[in-house]
Amino acid sequence: METTELPHQRKIEVCYSPALFPVYYSNKNCVVVVIDIFRATSAICTAFQYGVSKIIPVSSVDEARVYQAQGFIAAAERSGEVVEGFDMGNSPFSYMNHVLKGREIVLTTTNGTKAIERAKAADQIIVGSFLNIQAVCNYLEQQNKNVILLCAGWKDRYNMEDSLFAGAVVDQLKKNPIYTGLADSSLAANHLYASAKGNLMEFLKPSSHRRRLERLNLDRDIEYCLQMNTMDLVPIFKGNGLVIEN
Amino acid sequence: METTELPHQRKIEVCYSPALFPVYYSNKNCVVVVIDIFRATSAICTAFQYGVSKIIPVSSVDEARVYQAQGFIAAAERSGEVVEGFDMGNSPFSYMNHVLKGREIVLTTTNGTKAIERAKAADQIIVGSFLNIQAVCNYLEQQNKNVILLCAGWKDRYNMEDSLFAGAVVDQLKKNPIYTGLADSSLAANHLYASAKGNLMEFLKPSSHRRRLERLNLDRDIEYCLQMNTMDLVPIFKGNGLVIEN
Repeated sequence: METTELPHQRKIEVCYSPALFPVYYSNKNCVVVVIDIFRATSAICTAFQYGVSKIIPVSSVDEARVYQAQGFIAAAERSGEVVEGFDMGNSPFSYMNHVLKGREIVLTTTNGTKAIERAKAADQIIVGSFLNIQAVCNYLEQQNKNVILLCAGWKDRYNMEDSLFAGAVVDQLKKNPIYTGLADSSLAANHLYASAKGNLMEFLKPSSHRRRLERLNLDRDIEYCLQMNTMDLVPIFKGNGLVIEN
Repeated sequence: METTELPHQRKIEVCYSPALFPVYYSNKNCVVVVIDIFRATSAICTAFQYGVSKIIPVSSVDEARVYQAQGFIAAAERSGEVVEGFDMGNSPFSYMNHVLKGREIVLTTTNGTKAIERAKAADQIIVGSFLNIQAVCNYLEQQNKNVILLCAGWKDRYNMEDSLFAGAVVDQLKKNPIYTGLADSSLAANHLYASAKGNLMEFLKPSSHRRRLERLNLDRDIEYCLQMNTMDLVPIFKGNGLVIEN
């Protein structure tokens, strides 16, 4: 509890399912990092690198259609595939398009955008992926607040790749003495990452989402999403959407 | 989903919080193993070893008081300590008493009995601890059903010791070819156990519950609860309470 903490002591907790967010979220004095490695948060980071001005996450396909009818560029993914009637899903490659520069995009995905929806009670929500991991860690250290690493998981279940990313963030942040309060969830994620470090691709082979994407021929997406530090940006939720500060 | 499984294929999933049980529980064709290593499920196993005939788990201290007033032996623990007005909490040592032989005990604890309460939708609920791990694995293999390893955690949060036990069960069961469907949650628990194996005590040093119990001078309880295979029994939920089959 907040009151028992030393003034400069900060907690890091990993919330392994969006359904558990109310358990971990106790007050506004925290930054929530939303994590959906395969592939929503990796795609979001990529979109910003290609100059998108804003991403409006919505929970349902119907909402995305309403925006689409108003002329927005809209993207929708369910169970790994692009939803009929949309040009884009959550493959990062579909966002590597300079036509999107300066545009706002509406996005709905199976897990990632739902996790953002759940996190909205918090003051500060940012988006993390291996692609921008160092930028995320720098941002968190600057904020000097408690951290909740919110794994989007798969339909509210635990998943491996989001947990590994959470562990990688803990691995970096634990070097900073303000983060003395490592919760069991953070210790476990960090151990998992220590087992996988250096060969994430191989480690993820038996994981369910990796297998799911393999069936959909998305090996290229997997390799892309496991790259570390390819971009120096942090998508932040403001108003009704994600933006980056320049 | 059930329909896509081969006839002899069984799933093992780890549910890291009682609050997630509805996410993991999809049909009655499963065995739920309730896990609260420090200390409810270790205490329950110990009680049966000392001849208790039945343990009636209840959610609230008030309910336990009602039974107590009716002449039942009642035990109550909250936040690691015995509740005022009760002789026993969840220390396994308090159940090492031959006076309890043949008696029924009513029990309420911070996490363990609540997890049992949540699991009641399932047909088969058993209780697992390191003390009876081999008996639990044998039982599960005989049942030949899907397995949900339900960690009681700490107030609906992830905890380390329950996850380690789940990983130890996976480590044993995965040798049996019927368990081909290891969910990500099971793979992760198994990796965690692989890191800790052989020195659970040391591995748990930075964990929150270990620290909590240390403050309460419960090191002896911790050591006791981390012993492997000291008893060959499986508490099973039947009717309104836990019993063992002879």
